[in-house]
Amino acid sequence: MNYKIIIQYDGTRYDGWQKQGNTSQTIQGKLEAVLCRYAGEKTEVHGAGRTDAGVHALGQTANFHLAKAADEGELLAYLNRYLPEDIEVTELVRVPERFHSRLNAAEKTYRYRVETGCCKHVFERKQIYRMEECGGMLDQESMQRAAELLEGTHDFKSFCANKRMKKSTVRTVKRIGITRRGTEYIFDFTGDGFLYNMVRILTGTLLEVGLGRRDWRSMEELLEARDRSLAGFTAPAQGLTLLNVRY
Amino acid sequence: MNYKIIIQYDGTRYDGWQKQGNTSQTIQGKLEAVLCRYAGEKTEVHGAGRTDAGVHALGQTANFHLAKAADEGELLAYLNRYLPEDIEVTELVRVPERFHSRLNAAEKTYRYRVETGCCKHVFERKQIYRMEECGGMLDQESMQRAAELLEGTHDFKSFCANKRMKKSTVRTVKRIGITRRGTEYIFDFTGDGFLYNMVRILTGTLLEVGLGRRDWRSMEELLEARDRSLAGFTAPAQGLTLLNVRY
Repeated sequence: MNYKIIIQYDGTRYDGWQKQGNTSQTIQGKLEAVLCRYAGEKTEVHGAGRTDAGVHALGQTANFHLAKAADEGELLAYLNRYLPEDIEVTELVRVPERFHSRLNAAEKTYRYRVETGCCKHVFERKQIYRMEECGGMLDQESMQRAAELLEGTHDFKSFCANKRMKKSTVRTVKRIGITRRGTEYIFDFTGDGFLYNMVRILTGTLLEVGLGRRDWRSMEELLEARDRSLAGFTAPAQGLTLLNVRY
Repeated sequence: MNYKIIIQYDGTRYDGWQKQGNTSQTIQGKLEAVLCRYAGEKTEVHGAGRTDAGVHALGQTANFHLAKAADEGELLAYLNRYLPEDIEVTELVRVPERFHSRLNAAEKTYRYRVETGCCKHVFERKQIYRMEECGGMLDQESMQRAAELLEGTHDFKSFCANKRMKKSTVRTVKRIGITRRGTEYIFDFTGDGFLYNMVRILTGTLLEVGLGRRDWRSMEELLEARDRSLAGFTAPAQGLTLLNVRY
């Protein structure tokens, strides 16, 4: 019996999605502990995106197998009752046996929020990165042009933090949307998959373009170089949220 | 020189608005400490509403006097630079000497949010009270009727937590609005002033009506009784936010 779940979490208190050694302070670890209690046996949860420590999710997707069929409503209520208050399973549905949340994912969308002015966003402060050095203004047109050069199918090795990555670093970024709300800039990235830290390095690079420290025309050579050290800084985890996964 | 400020805060970490002995973990205490640093002398901040420990504000209003005129933009930036990340001054303007944020307040609006279903509101969880016992449904029509009986000018002694209140307990509640979003109920209270814990006791009483534990018709005798022990429970602080103050 295979079940697909959609999960929302405030990543502030966690060491990210993926279980690490004997640390249970991960989203995957918390889910597996509750499922183990429910099913009476070890249950592995496969997540669509391995979000880093401090990264949030509105629509993370995962799946897991149970030996016995469960009542969906009952299992959903059980999970939420025993999960901490900063993790919620918003949907649970039985899916065909062969469904795998990561391998079958067609596209993912991540959102990165940056406040460039003096607004503190008192109630949302843990989901926004504050970059005050530019005094409330970024060069949005240049960021837009750089984003257009980054869209499409490319080798994104320059934007991958894993130096020993042996598999292909080619990915398709379908769309990078940049919008502004007052002095807040919102970057939405949709793609078929993202490398380790890729969204945060893309954001850091675009921010450097917006700050006038990097020319938007340099994106092509940056992709060609396949060298992480030439790309921008890794934007902090707290500004990032996994919005949704499409199948 | 008299200055009026509008303040936003996440009250979770604080012992409320008002300074208490040598506790500096209050909103007033934090503001006064930064102003003292700025002005080089003790400066008292008068708040429009003395919010309790754990209560939030979107539009708290206050005023303070300075010996020397300050540049408004500069002072606003200074305050936000030294205030913690969960307190923001969103507006600062010089006002006539006689202006007093509490004494001149014409009306205040408080919002109380209650989640009655299983939605955890992962990102807003500290601004919402979760009351799961009713399984997602309250009797909204009865609450509405009770609210109508509470609106108007009455002696609200039954809704006042201060047993030794010597001043008048007569207040005018101009409007109580009850709206529903899914399984969340939102109570908006607008009035010329509220007694100690009054909004939270009004909310607790309305919730008991919504749960069917109290008849909406009993509101008139409850007001007449002038006895706190006959009203409902005090709804927890975290669901309450001071929305705005009008002059």
